[in-house]
Amino acid sequence: MSTISEKIFSRAAGKEVKANDFVIADVDYAMAHDGTSVLAVRSFKEMEIDKVWNPERIVIPFDHLTPANTDTTAALQADIRGWIKEQNIKNFFDVGEGICHQLMPEKGFALPGKLVVGADSHTCTYGAFGAFGTGVGATDMSEIFASGKLWFRVPESIRITAEGKLDKNVSAKDLTLKIIGTLGVAGATYKAAEFYGNTIEDLSMAGRMTLCNMAIEMGAKTGIVPPDKTTFDYLKERAVEEYEPLYADEDASYAEEYHFDAGELEPQVACPHNVDNVHNISDIPATRIDQAFIGTCTNGRLEDLEAAADILRGEKVAVRTIVVPASREVLIEAVRKGVIETLLEAGAIIGSPGCGPCLGGHMGVIGKGEVCISTANRNFKGRMGTGGYIYLASPATAAASAITGEITSPADI
Amino acid sequence: MSTISEKIFSRAAGKEVKANDFVIADVDYAMAHDGTSVLAVRSFKEMEIDKVWNPERIVIPFDHLTPANTDTTAALQADIRGWIKEQNIKNFFDVGEGICHQLMPEKGFALPGKLVVGADSHTCTYGAFGAFGTGVGATDMSEIFASGKLWFRVPESIRITAEGKLDKNVSAKDLTLKIIGTLGVAGATYKAAEFYGNTIEDLSMAGRMTLCNMAIEMGAKTGIVPPDKTTFDYLKERAVEEYEPLYADEDASYAEEYHFDAGELEPQVACPHNVDNVHNISDIPATRIDQAFIGTCTNGRLEDLEAAADILRGEKVAVRTIVVPASREVLIEAVRKGVIETLLEAGAIIGSPGCGPCLGGHMGVIGKGEVCISTANRNFKGRMGTGGYIYLASPATAAASAITGEITSPADI
Repeated sequence: MSTISEKIFSRAAGKEVKANDFVIADVDYAMAHDGTSVLAVRSFKEMEIDKVWNPERIVIPFDHLTPANTDTTAALQADIRGWIKEQNIKNFFDVGEGICHQLMPEKGFALPGKLVVGADSHTCTYGAFGAFGTGVGATDMSEIFASGKLWFRVPESIRITAEGKLDKNVSAKDLTLKIIGTLGVAGATYKAAEFYGNTIEDLSMAGRMTLCNMAIEMGAKTGIVPPDKTTFDYLKERAVEEYEPLYADEDASYAEEYHFDAGELEPQVACPHNVDNVHNISDIPATRIDQAFIGTCTNGRLEDLEAAADILRGEKVAVRTIVVPASREVLIEAVRKGVIETLLEAGAIIGSPGCGPCLGGHMGVIGKGEVCISTANRNFKGRMGTGGYIYLASPATAAASAITGEITSPADI
Repeated sequence: MSTISEKIFSRAAGKEVKANDFVIADVDYAMAHDGTSVLAVRSFKEMEIDKVWNPERIVIPFDHLTPANTDTTAALQADIRGWIKEQNIKNFFDVGEGICHQLMPEKGFALPGKLVVGADSHTCTYGAFGAFGTGVGATDMSEIFASGKLWFRVPESIRITAEGKLDKNVSAKDLTLKIIGTLGVAGATYKAAEFYGNTIEDLSMAGRMTLCNMAIEMGAKTGIVPPDKTTFDYLKERAVEEYEPLYADEDASYAEEYHFDAGELEPQVACPHNVDNVHNISDIPATRIDQAFIGTCTNGRLEDLEAAADILRGEKVAVRTIVVPASREVLIEAVRKGVIETLLEAGAIIGSPGCGPCLGGHMGVIGKGEVCISTANRNFKGRMGTGGYIYLASPATAAASAITGEITSPADI
């Protein structure tokens, strides 16, 4: 009578645990990126411990401010590179390799049944593989660096079911936005969201990652899709070690249950400045945009770039359109498949793999009063530039909007 | 008995002029980029003139800080876009289209016999096409915006001849560095350098652009290659208007003459922190690098990327290797020809077309004590990041060095 989370924490704590128990759990993989590793390493050094608990279980991708945007960033990144070498951490992915939440699955660290902790709020992405993936602060990460352990309160779970076949202009992102719009930004606070139903089962790994990536946007500790053949196929050539999928018992106890009829869904847009300010695209008044951004850990995968290219083929963008592939692997595949050529011919700009302008670091910051339609996961005030406005949508919707220069449904192109 | 410069200024001033004459000349095309247009437009507005002299002869590419790196940059770029629209300037190239000095030739504004003035020091690049291309300050540019005219002292000319066939590991960049190393950073101050000889005649347009691009690095007002079939072929589908090539008379008077034996040349490197600190690569002691950068208005063209790809094919880079194509056209061609795939497989990072990290704006700033081998034109102290060291070399040398992690001749790969 356990949820997936209860089972993962029971394994990781070495004893049977239930929701709301406090546990000290063994972390399977710990991740910090260029932004958070600076603080985590500083805090680790203050502990005066010579060596990290296990260098093979620590993964450090540089993605947030890459390639370095300032002297200060360059110097901080150089320091972290030195520490990584000193600690003999082999799982280091330097600038240009991709976004942490893409690399963790691609490189086989996001595995069913594992507890994967990252110093980044969107670590919940790995639930797409049936892992318990969750974000912590940088100082908590330093504790993991030192001991391989961290304390948790085992979360209660909620059960979200989506049934029905998605319309051809509707993607995992639209379903995700619909769910967050319905539950609200605090609708799942400190809960684990388990996803069920034939809509979820039909999603590719990319789609499931989009869904779980945004679990934090409704306050959830993580989002989890039960592993299946789609999962195992993806992991076949990637998994760094053996894994044991864990599933909820039929009589597992859920704090709440939600049902969505996905077959009826139309493209969704989250309007400024909250992720749960979600509307059917047909209900949104004409909205001029200055920039379109397709990428991020939410929607920077090959199928996302292909969706954008399908809309943009033979068309020309009317506004600055920045496409940032989620990883080197995604970019190389997109080059091979002609996707990059199609995007370039349409007038899009291709950034180097990483977070790009998502967090307003560089590579496409928007100015005061400017409007960006983005495939990212957050539209908080000022995130992409002070005084800017961010609308969240799917890659297809962002691409359609890039062509017209205003928020546009892919059905209208 | 006139030099090319004297003939161009005679045409542009509407009367026969000689070196050292002061003239007021009609400018054929005026260029300002995102960096300098901010100041030029501010200064223009202070004149309280409603309309620019001729919107069709003004070209504005955004390349220096693109896509925008900060709130401030984004806001300034938004302001300039507004002014461009207001002034009905059609020749506007927004972020991601490429570097000004690549776009001016590609879009057919750099034409034989024309006077082309840019608010950027490397405007001398257009001499590759037999234009008189020269850089001015932003306030001078505002005068051109207002009147289409500017005063000049007609420069004296020097005559540089290079004879011999370049070794397969030696390119236009090596010849250029050799010339600057020989003449020194003030060796041609306020002179126009005319380039002759079979080495020059054998250079592609890309190679000639590399050569003329760096004329300013020896203090020259411009560098000029007499137009020939190579020039006319390049311009065939590009030239925005008719042009008349102008050539020096046989008895033209030169302040100085220099001869180079290019057949004997080995790869050259300009060491920190001066462009004329040039050495044969075989004379440089083992020098570890942290980053390689291939791109810029000096060496970001297709043939440069191909030279790098030829070295990197099947290899892996040992250091951060940033490749920034000079324009969208270059990038699309490089994608089509498989060059980008080769570079990505070797581990290089592809930036979006523009100046990239050349001026330390963003996209690959180096940290204190870090060393970058770069195909750019300047290695001034702090240019790519405070406390960094820049070595200038050819694309082939930069690529070879990226593989070994230290400065390496392409002959040794």
